[in-house]
This record gives sequence, C-alpha cells and structure tokens, in this order.
Amino acid sequence: MKLAELGEFGLIDRIKANVAASPSVLLGIGDDAAALSPTPGQVTLITSDMLLEGVHFDLSFCDPHTLGRKSLSVNLSDVAAMGARPRHFLLGVALPKDVPLEFMDGFMAGMLEQAQRYGATLVGGDTCASKGGVAISVTALGEQRPELVVTRSGARPGDLVCVTGTVGDAAAGLKQLFQGVRDGFLVARQLDPTPRVEAGVALAEAGVVTAMIDVSDGVLQDLGHICEMSGVGARLELARLPLSEHYLAYCEGSHAPLAPWERDGGEGAATGKESPGDDPFALALSGGEDYELLFCIPADKEAEVAALCAKVDLPVSVIGAITAESGIQLAAPDGSPYTPPRRGFDHFGAD
Amino acid sequence: MKLAELGEFGLIDRIKANVAASPSVLLGIGDDAAALSPTPGQVTLITSDMLLEGVHFDLSFCDPHTLGRKSLSVNLSDVAAMGARPRHFLLGVALPKDVPLEFMDGFMAGMLEQAQRYGATLVGGDTCASKGGVAISVTALGEQRPELVVTRSGARPGDLVCVTGTVGDAAAGLKQLFQGVRDGFLVARQLDPTPRVEAGVALAEAGVVTAMIDVSDGVLQDLGHICEMSGVGARLELARLPLSEHYLAYCEGSHAPLAPWERDGGEGAATGKESPGDDPFALALSGGEDYELLFCIPADKEAEVAALCAKVDLPVSVIGAITAESGIQLAAPDGSPYTPPRRGFDHFGAD
Repeated sequence: MKLAELGEFGLIDRIKANVAASPSVLLGIGDDAAALSPTPGQVTLITSDMLLEGVHFDLSFCDPHTLGRKSLSVNLSDVAAMGARPRHFLLGVALPKDVPLEFMDGFMAGMLEQAQRYGATLVGGDTCASKGGVAISVTALGEQRPELVVTRSGARPGDLVCVTGTVGDAAAGLKQLFQGVRDGFLVARQLDPTPRVEAGVALAEAGVVTAMIDVSDGVLQDLGHICEMSGVGARLELARLPLSEHYLAYCEGSHAPLAPWERDGGEGAATGKESPGDDPFALALSGGEDYELLFCIPADKEAEVAALCAKVDLPVSVIGAITAESGIQLAAPDGSPYTPPRRGFDHFGAD
Repeated sequence: MKLAELGEFGLIDRIKANVAASPSVLLGIGDDAAALSPTPGQVTLITSDMLLEGVHFDLSFCDPHTLGRKSLSVNLSDVAAMGARPRHFLLGVALPKDVPLEFMDGFMAGMLEQAQRYGATLVGGDTCASKGGVAISVTALGEQRPELVVTRSGARPGDLVCVTGTVGDAAAGLKQLFQGVRDGFLVARQLDPTPRVEAGVALAEAGVVTAMIDVSDGVLQDLGHICEMSGVGARLELARLPLSEHYLAYCEGSHAPLAPWERDGGEGAATGKESPGDDPFALALSGGEDYELLFCIPADKEAEVAALCAKVDLPVSVIGAITAESGIQLAAPDGSPYTPPRRGFDHFGAD
C-alpha cells in the first residue's frame, strides 16, 4: 500500500492509534496544537533537529525502524545534555508520495519504541509530501528543576573534562558503511546511537557537573563549544581518549579510500593526509555522532562521578582538564603536542 | 557572500545577534536545548509545520523576507486557533550551500519582524545543509489558561458556524501566481497571510467559542475536522460565504488553465469540470491557506462575537450552523443543494 492510498489524514490516524496517553498531555495529536501541562517548579528544555535523506542518512544504509529510533535519539541526546528528562516530542515528516506504507510503519515503530524507553510522548507534528527525499524534523521537550539544568557555560579552570562511553565509533561506522559493511558494532554505533538520558539526568541531579554537551559534531568541536561559552580553554591527553577495541581494530586495518564527508577540502586536505583511518586519534577527535556526553566536573568529584556512571552501567573517562588559557591543547601519548588533521563537522563547510 | 564562507556556527551567531531577550527564556539560542520558564497556571500549546521548496513555496514567487514571515505566520495561526498567545518558537532550516547570505538575512528579518509583532521569541532550532531545495521547519509554542483553550471537539448542534475575514483569496492568489501575476491583493493573501492572533485570543478569553480551527486546508475540509472531532454535522449557506471583491472579480474574469495543485485526479477531475475558477463557491470552499479562523459559537453569542471581532478590526461572518446529523450540507444561494467539485487539500493525494 502506498501513502497516496491512505492519504494524509489516514496516515495521521494510523500514527495516533499507536501513541499511549500521558497525564501531562491534555490534548495530543489531532488538533491545531497540542496542549501540555508543565510540571510546577520545572523549566521546559526544548530542542529541534532536522534529518535529511542524502545529508544525514542514506536509506540504503539503514532500515526504517532504525532510522525512526535515531531520529528521536539525537534529540533526546540534546535534552539529556541539559540534564533533563525527556517528556514530549513532535515529529515533522516529508515523504515522497510513492513511499510504501511499510516504510512509515517501520519508522514509527522504531521511534515510538525509543520514545517509550525514555519516557517521551508524541504529541503532534506535521506530515507532508516531499518532491525530493525523506525529510524529518523532530522537536523534543524535557523538564528539569531550573537550578539543576546544565549549560555549556559553567566550566572553570581546573575542572576535569570527562566523556562517557567511547568516541570515534560512529565516524568509523560511517566509513565502514561507505565501504559496503552493513552491520557490526561500529555500524550500529553510527545508525542506532544510544542517548545517554539516565547518565545526563543522574549527573545533573547530583549537582556535580559544571558544563555539559553531547558529542554530535566531534569531541574537539563540541569541547570547543564548552570552552567558548565558558570563556576557558582545555588540555586533552590523547592517551586517555576512550577508544573501543572495535574502533582500534578498524583503525589498524583501515587503509580505505576517504568517505565523501572526509573529502571536504578542509584542514585534513591541507595536511595531504590520505585518510585519518590509520590515525586513531584523528577520527576520535573529529568524528561526530557518538552522542556520548562530554562534561566538566570539579577535580574533587571524580570518584563520585565514576560511581554515578557505574550505577547507570556507563563507563566514564577523564580525558583532560580545563585551562584558564583559551584554545585546546592536545598532548600525544608521548607528551608531545599533537595537531589534528581535521577539526569537526560544519554543515556549510566548502565541498 | 555564500553560506559556505560564513559556516554553520557563523550563521547561528548572526541569527542570534538579532534576537531580543525575553524574561521567560532562561536560555536561548546556543546550547543543546533552550530552557523556557512556563507561566504558572498556564498550559503550553505547541505546533510544528514544515515548508518545503517546490511543495509549499516557490522562490520565484516570493522574496525571502515574505517567506520568513509566512513560515512563522502559519504556525502562529495554529497557536491562535487554540485561543493561545504565541510565546516562543524554534526554526529548523536546511539550505543549499550556494545560497547567498542575503537570502538568509532577508528570511530572518521577515521572520523576526513577524515574531516581534506577535510576541514570539526565537529560542533555538537547527541549521543544516540541503542537497535539494530549501526546507523549513518551525515549531511554535503558546500559552493559555487551561480552561480557555479552544479545541476542535466542542461544537454542538445549533451552534453557529463563523469565519473571520474572507475565504478563497489565497487559493485565487496561487492561481494568479501560476498565471504570472506577482502582486496585488490576492497574491499577498497567498504569500503573506496574517495569523489571526488577536481575534483567536479575544474569542477564547471571552469564553464564547465551542470549537475553533484555522483555515489551512480549505473551509470544507477544516469544518469537516471540527465536525468529525465534535461528532456533529453542519449546514452551510453559500450566499453567506465572505468573498472579497478582488476574489469575485478574479472568478468573473478567470478562464485560466488549472494550476498544478488542481490537477489532482480527485473529485474535481471526476466532475469533468475544467476549472473551479469560474465558480466562486468551489474555490472558496476548497482553497486552503487563508489562515482565517473558522469557529463555532452558541446561537445567542452572535452579537457578542461581532463586537469582539470589531474591536480587533476583523470582519466576521456567520456562514451556517452545526447539525446533529453528520456530514456537511451545502445550500446554494437559491436554496438548492450544492455539490462541490473538490473537497480540499491532501498532501498525499494522487497526482
């Protein structure tokens, strides 16, 4: 069955039928706007992300179910990076008319499964026809007590820089996808990231975090955002970057051609380096989409943070420290200064 | 200057510089999510709309400034149709890399001008590169006391059906655009609709409205939504449809070819009717995008509603009544039953 047979309002009814009720949703899908009842004493955290076919995803790389999960996950990750609990979300989706209904059913099943897992309720959005590819826009709302919200701007000199999980996996997974690999740990890290909601909320509620961001553009660039907003710098020790065994094995074996997103004529090209694939630090610093939490804590909170993250079953690593001097210094494992071939992702960077 | 020279973060800074502060915005553009302070005792109304180049707009028809205004207006209209005051909004925009910076500057100027006019503050969103055309996604938030929110589901038999302003203008304006006309009243109604925010809020706060919707898909279809959600029907008197003199003049003179969106193989095609352009009722009933308010009131509130709308300088017309029997009956000016050639817009309708 094609979407054209079901029609716009048939599609909306079909989506609505699978959404569970929530006491905070006074009015959900089906009116001009949704009506939400804010929790007294909490602020609303709100974020929005677009995902475009051919830019953010390739339908030959992922099934609709996984795409639905990821489309929500990247937004939940932003809510988590504020230390907030996800509550509600809206979905805008533009679809070519010849898309089979199974695509949308799979997409919604994946998205709603992820929503339920993290306590978010679909409350509205928009469906329309696309003359190009699939376009997805998700707006996610979360809540937290105002004094517990964690911004990017509170990092202070002497704070430790921490990151959850491992970094570089998603970027290596994207390279593998372009090389024809369709599954495995790294590919799953790229296509189906886990938003670190429990960790983000636990860290915020413990009051131990001075600044936090999720790793969507790459460690170096995202730490750069914290430094800029906090008016500080940082020094990272590359030996402390948490790299998965899969990632290290990939880098060791990789002499593959550059993926399209690496051929950007940026700093990487200027170094004349063929591929960062054989330098594990380069990709781990510049590769985005790991959706791990990168955050700063006072130096005396290291043990407390380790215990908090252990409680939610998530490894955490101290990878450096905040400095009063601006800029990010990188120290190679032998202590010498390290210059990365590439900084991170800029959507409007020259081709 | 091209966007590629400014970069993603340069563009965000440029947008941010033009956004005024608001006391309810604890944290605006520039973090993982915005932090909003809900007003105690009010519920949050939230709505989202996508606008795609080639589907919702044609850049040869409108300047960026007007497109920016409309992209916000259509969302403010949804907030108004709930009887709520606009407060905040998020903007997602996907742009081809070769878009000149002037496009984005004009677009933002139009959008922020409209935002200021209606009391809405830009708090966040997303910018990314598009490999197709321009894609816009706006999420708007409003507030209202819960008991004053007006849904689509409260219409009762005997209620009067009212509409603000005039209908059919925007659809006629779109036909004119396809015929090469680039300005005038009807074209302006299509490209630069006015969200009926003051009227929506005034009607809700007076407590006189039983159901309300904005006319985005066409009077017949939007009234159909009210009837379906309220479990009622309606009878409309076509002689009472408010039609502008520009619209009537257009219909009188129009024997133009069908616009692309009219060639939909739907009910219109089945009637063999060449163009609804010469039947003023057909286009006024099926044409969308007027963004007028269509609402129902108890029969004894007609004078009060007329006075309320006069106070915000907006004409209002009673066009029919709600019936217990389901379905929408249409009465031609001579009293005979009228069957429309076309019902309204469905995004996934067959080509």
